[in-house]
Amino acid sequence: MVSFGHLRMDKPTLPKGTRDFGPAVMAKRQFILSQVRSVFEKYGFQPLETPAMENLSTLTGKYGDEGDQLLFRILDSGDFVGEDGIEFLKDTMVNSPDIDWDNVHLNTFREMVSGKGLRYDLTVPFSRYVVMNRHEVTFPFRRYQIQPVWRADRPQKGRYREFYQCDADVVGTDSLIPEAEIILMIKEVFGKLGIADYTIKINHRGVLTGIAELVKAKGKEGALFVAIDKLDKIGEGAVREELANKGFDQSGIDTLFNLLKTEGSNSEKLTKLSEQFIGNAHGEKGVADLRETFQLLGDAGGNQDHLEFDISLARGLSYYTGAIFEVKVNNVSIGSVSGGGRYDNLTGVFGMPGVSGVGISFGVDRLYDVMEELNLFPADTLVSTQVLIAHLDSNCKRYGLTVLQQLRNHEISSEIYPDDAKVKKQFDFANKKFIPFVIVIGTDEMTSGKLTFKDMKTGTQSSLRIEEIVHQLTSS
Amino acid sequence: MVSFGHLRMDKPTLPKGTRDFGPAVMAKRQFILSQVRSVFEKYGFQPLETPAMENLSTLTGKYGDEGDQLLFRILDSGDFVGEDGIEFLKDTMVNSPDIDWDNVHLNTFREMVSGKGLRYDLTVPFSRYVVMNRHEVTFPFRRYQIQPVWRADRPQKGRYREFYQCDADVVGTDSLIPEAEIILMIKEVFGKLGIADYTIKINHRGVLTGIAELVKAKGKEGALFVAIDKLDKIGEGAVREELANKGFDQSGIDTLFNLLKTEGSNSEKLTKLSEQFIGNAHGEKGVADLRETFQLLGDAGGNQDHLEFDISLARGLSYYTGAIFEVKVNNVSIGSVSGGGRYDNLTGVFGMPGVSGVGISFGVDRLYDVMEELNLFPADTLVSTQVLIAHLDSNCKRYGLTVLQQLRNHEISSEIYPDDAKVKKQFDFANKKFIPFVIVIGTDEMTSGKLTFKDMKTGTQSSLRIEEIVHQLTSS
Repeated sequence: MVSFGHLRMDKPTLPKGTRDFGPAVMAKRQFILSQVRSVFEKYGFQPLETPAMENLSTLTGKYGDEGDQLLFRILDSGDFVGEDGIEFLKDTMVNSPDIDWDNVHLNTFREMVSGKGLRYDLTVPFSRYVVMNRHEVTFPFRRYQIQPVWRADRPQKGRYREFYQCDADVVGTDSLIPEAEIILMIKEVFGKLGIADYTIKINHRGVLTGIAELVKAKGKEGALFVAIDKLDKIGEGAVREELANKGFDQSGIDTLFNLLKTEGSNSEKLTKLSEQFIGNAHGEKGVADLRETFQLLGDAGGNQDHLEFDISLARGLSYYTGAIFEVKVNNVSIGSVSGGGRYDNLTGVFGMPGVSGVGISFGVDRLYDVMEELNLFPADTLVSTQVLIAHLDSNCKRYGLTVLQQLRNHEISSEIYPDDAKVKKQFDFANKKFIPFVIVIGTDEMTSGKLTFKDMKTGTQSSLRIEEIVHQLTSS
Repeated sequence: MVSFGHLRMDKPTLPKGTRDFGPAVMAKRQFILSQVRSVFEKYGFQPLETPAMENLSTLTGKYGDEGDQLLFRILDSGDFVGEDGIEFLKDTMVNSPDIDWDNVHLNTFREMVSGKGLRYDLTVPFSRYVVMNRHEVTFPFRRYQIQPVWRADRPQKGRYREFYQCDADVVGTDSLIPEAEIILMIKEVFGKLGIADYTIKINHRGVLTGIAELVKAKGKEGALFVAIDKLDKIGEGAVREELANKGFDQSGIDTLFNLLKTEGSNSEKLTKLSEQFIGNAHGEKGVADLRETFQLLGDAGGNQDHLEFDISLARGLSYYTGAIFEVKVNNVSIGSVSGGGRYDNLTGVFGMPGVSGVGISFGVDRLYDVMEELNLFPADTLVSTQVLIAHLDSNCKRYGLTVLQQLRNHEISSEIYPDDAKVKKQFDFANKKFIPFVIVIGTDEMTSGKLTFKDMKTGTQSSLRIEEIVHQLTSS
């Protein structure tokens, strides 16, 4: 019998791949999220939240076999659900004593006893929402969603089992204005975060499909795109080898690399490619869409700084049907921090075809790591008390309560040290909590109404009436 | 064989007891949360977030047997964990063909294959966090936490399987200042939400224990408190009957009701009770604590409006050791919207004794329902676009993009109708999205630079330069 050591531990631990966010980290995360949220709202996106749990039928089959493996499944609980599952199990196992255990797949087993899973991304729940609320939603529908998602990935540096996504999508229009707006929003978010050196890579599924045609990869597009996508990481030699192993012939591979080596500005690349794509419907569509996207970007007053048409950009998910985006911060250890694209068929799996969407997702955990690495967080992000009231004895503490309430009446975040303690201990407390100002109440202060007011950063100490302190704190 | 119909559905559904929050609902929820958050921060509380999943060892045994039943358990996923579970199951079932299925408890079975569960409240994860970070945390530690929790309760009106809690707790002080601050915070939150008619009920575990002594309920305190707590709902007769059935004698029950009928102001009730509690250590402590709490409240400039010392308030959770709070909104169908109290031993279960805490929790779902019932949400909560740009043809649309960017440069939330469409359709869109202003771009507008600017509420239409529109929107 196997023992479950983790069920008997005394010292509490966190599940692998999950994290607590204490006050200092929360302040920095909230800084990122509030910048992203303000840009989303400025561009007319409205908030949506969906439940952490979805029915397994909503989730499975949407993320490929690998994704299905990485879903966290939730057991039906209580005694008013789940009886079906246990009955089924009982039937299967008790009535089939010869059961071939080696062929009972773990996931089959899991599905017997669970009907729900944790949200794996924000796109599928959004799509489910649109289908379920198709009669109430005003199309084109711009929604943003900032929530955690869960994946049973093997935890490693920078990869967690619970992490936040920040998505903005527009569904219900074929216009390419949202593509241009996505570029503008990315630039604005990065500007607000203070990240200066980054590249927005853009490509188009039509360009990729057009290339596949030129390379004669019919029926092997998937393998081709997967190989192309790795070019950045593994280099030309390794990609050539991989393609040869996958059965591509030498002339096709040479054609591919001639295309991938197209150089010049974004519009020069488009011009060169369009010459190759004459009579190639997918390729022509891709080039035309990108041209129009750049045109619309210009109309909206945006330039092509940071923007790179990258013919090799494919990204993993195969559901993109139009533009494909990926944002990389340059010269940091973490690469991609944002990605997205246009997908024409997402609501189709839920029985609602013909709704085109395009979206962008920011990875807050990766943005956080990038900002830490580049030391970009403002010094004053920490949400904290502005003023601590310290006191010499319990009478002074009682007097301090009236001072405290006056500060709070002026919306000044403040607190009083609740216990009777040495003033040194109270100052230590203020320092540890990074509280910038301390008011000290002693007998003299109570008599005169002039309070000792200390600026903890400069060390300056002054003697001021409470009204003067309030004025100083609210006018700065 | 049982068929799993829900795994083969085409039309997507939500798991029972869960909800989507679309833009209109989100706006109202965010209104509530931002009011609560601003009060928490003003009182010096700092944000914390903990993972949705906790190890089952952290969760089980903390909420009583009923709570354990209501935990959502998560299956170990992937093929790199969970093998233990399946091996165990295989051993148990295959090697014990005579297994007595009627005695395989569902939860036993569930624990075989899962090591994690979804967060059931915010207090236990907070306690776990404090213990794990005891060397980094600055005590007294004031944290607030606003996150969803999950309970496998039978869903019904007003009771969901996923709902938000908003908690603020102070740990690491025995001072009663936090108790007074909780009362002040509740008043401030309700003031900001516009809820005028509500009652903050306060009691003290010492008072309850003191009463139990007078009633001679030694060893039956739990049954006594449970019965007392129902007084509001089921009335005196039914409580008397329940107590008699539980073995309380008539004189004890009479004593109890004499005590419960203590009348007068809060301080009059305290005086009367203190006469009964002479020599009764728990009772005396309860009365003294409440007296000091009211005193501190007064020192901080607070009065006792809305505050009712309710001797029968017990609340379900048995871990309260000091003050007990509950807030009820009067004259609405939903009762309690907030509750809390002092607990002395919460971190003890994780091996860290002697840390006293006191906290308050606001139920955002119930506050939401109350505010809907009382029609208290401000009309302009909906986070939406301020301005829609409509256009007569695709040239006008291109011109509109420059106008759009000028609005956004001034932080005005705005969008352009992305498709070519009849102006009526574009106006309909603005109306459905409650967009208050529409700019219409036609050929004349492009030539003159004077744009048609329509106020959708009043119907007023004017012809203005973009700078004038920006000025009007940013100065109002």
